[in-house]
Amino acid sequence: MDQTPRDPDFEQRVRASYARQAAMATLGATLSQVAPGQVVIELPFRPDLTQQHGFLHAGVVTTAMDSACGYAAMSLMERGAAVLSVEFKVNLLAPARGVRFRASGRVVRAGRNLTVVTGEFRAVDGAGDPLVAMMTATMMAVRDRPDLVD
Amino acid sequence: MDQTPRDPDFEQRVRASYARQAAMATLGATLSQVAPGQVVIELPFRPDLTQQHGFLHAGVVTTAMDSACGYAAMSLMERGAAVLSVEFKVNLLAPARGVRFRASGRVVRAGRNLTVVTGEFRAVDGAGDPLVAMMTATMMAVRDRPDLVD
Amino acid sequence: MDQTPRDPDFEQRVRASYARQAAMATLGATLSQVAPGQVVIELPFRPDLTQQHGFLHAGVVTTAMDSACGYAAMSLMERGAAVLSVEFKVNLLAPARGVRFRASGRVVRAGRNLTVVTGEFRAVDGAGDPLVAMMTATMMAVRDRPDLVD
Amino acid sequence: MDQTPRDPDFEQRVRASYARQAAMATLGATLSQVAPGQVVIELPFRPDLTQQHGFLHAGVVTTAMDSACGYAAMSLMERGAAVLSVEFKVNLLAPARGVRFRASGRVVRAGRNLTVVTGEFRAVDGAGDPLVAMMTATMMAVRDRPDLVD
Repeated sequence: MDQTPRDPDFEQRVRASYARQAAMATLGATLSQVAPGQVVIELPFRPDLTQQHGFLHAGVVTTAMDSACGYAAMSLMERGAAVLSVEFKVNLLAPARGVRFRASGRVVRAGRNLTVVTGEFRAVDGAGDPLVAMMTATMMAVRDRPDLVD
Repeated sequence: MDQTPRDPDFEQRVRASYARQAAMATLGATLSQVAPGQVVIELPFRPDLTQQHGFLHAGVVTTAMDSACGYAAMSLMERGAAVLSVEFKVNLLAPARGVRFRASGRVVRAGRNLTVVTGEFRAVDGAGDPLVAMMTATMMAVRDRPDLVD
Repeated sequence: MDQTPRDPDFEQRVRASYARQAAMATLGATLSQVAPGQVVIELPFRPDLTQQHGFLHAGVVTTAMDSACGYAAMSLMERGAAVLSVEFKVNLLAPARGVRFRASGRVVRAGRNLTVVTGEFRAVDGAGDPLVAMMTATMMAVRDRPDLVD
Repeated sequence: MDQTPRDPDFEQRVRASYARQAAMATLGATLSQVAPGQVVIELPFRPDLTQQHGFLHAGVVTTAMDSACGYAAMSLMERGAAVLSVEFKVNLLAPARGVRFRASGRVVRAGRNLTVVTGEFRAVDGAGDPLVAMMTATMMAVRDRPDLVD
């Protein structure tokens, strides 16, 4: 799969857009890696983001993977295209317990309009980084919409 | 589909578990309705929960639907069973713009171990309440796990 | 949701395209209803389409729902647009046992390029028609592709 | 992920069950590889299994991946457990054009009751074997059901 970025300034563009995702700051998540077709986001455990058993809420896990997948898609889009999530599916493999987590997105196929991305969410424990959840997502490039500027 | 609750105190049990989901308080979400196989959660728009275009983040939309679907499933489970999300799929139909939102979950089929639930997320605007996103989820009943008490 | 067909001859167009789906004939499936945004396909049980326990194979169940969903989407598209499946998710609720089955698709949201459709697969037993499986699908309108004529 | 088979005769058990899937014979599909947690099924293009543009029907693509994923899960289950598909999600990346195809399933996480499997469907062209579709599936082990013998 050709994953040459159409915009040489893709990283700057992704980082600027990420900085506008207020939800990422609220989760305490940081954008740690941006490569063509691949993005990594990291976040700490936070007791105020848990579900009833004290694990990170599956929705919070999803939020981080969705952003990682969306920006992985955007890294291959041309300047001026905005990215929107069309759909995603998440399988939860293990409770999200740990001190620190890593969400990553990797483009499988980048089309002109639709991009398919897979995501992972791992607990970073220095001993295998167990897989907590996985995502398959479809992202859409939106153009000529002045109200949607990434 | 028989949706008779196995536990007459299902509502109290769901509300007590919901109160332990710290993530819901962090999102400002409240549990507004609990009926057998059906749960509704409401939340306001919050600028600190947005994606880059200023809409509610798709992950936040998912978080509220996941909780609504999980508790819809739990409302039909017997006392002592904990509920975990196995998987869910979300289709995003429109940007989550609005002042107030409603996430709902409705059980389609309640099995002994697995329950299939559909979810909706709507902008509450008093004029049709447009559909923002829909979910299909599989929830699992977990028993005899003292570490997982709902 | 506005589900006015853009092409008054939508039914004829859907039926002509369906007739070219050789797989439908191979499954013994027939197109029984075509309405704007809604399509129903029926098929009999066939022992040569079963999985290892003698139920209709989940893939056969999916094939019928995919066609029903795809043509439900196409019924709202303008003349000349071809329809392709982008993705679908299937939840299997009960084994596909029975004599006759009905797959249906219903458009939830028809956009210019992407249409979201929900599908159902029921055993037709004259006593409640139990739900066997459900689908959520994204369909895409493809234009200006002479090799893809519906 | 530990993928040691619980039954040393797993291959024989998978092959015997596959031989009872009448739908596989109807599609002309053959079981080409069975390893612990991994199964490959191959099938030729067939004009009687196509959709309206002459490509293999997305449902046929799904049928082969569902069997590959189901048997990948079963290869790790103990003797006497039957396998049923709980749900799957398919992303279609490219039209299924070609002469021969390969569907594969690989277990991501094998639990006692639920197994998560990823599947791929590729056109076998001796030049990269382009990816046509991918699947994420949840498979369930069913025990003590004399009517469900794999």
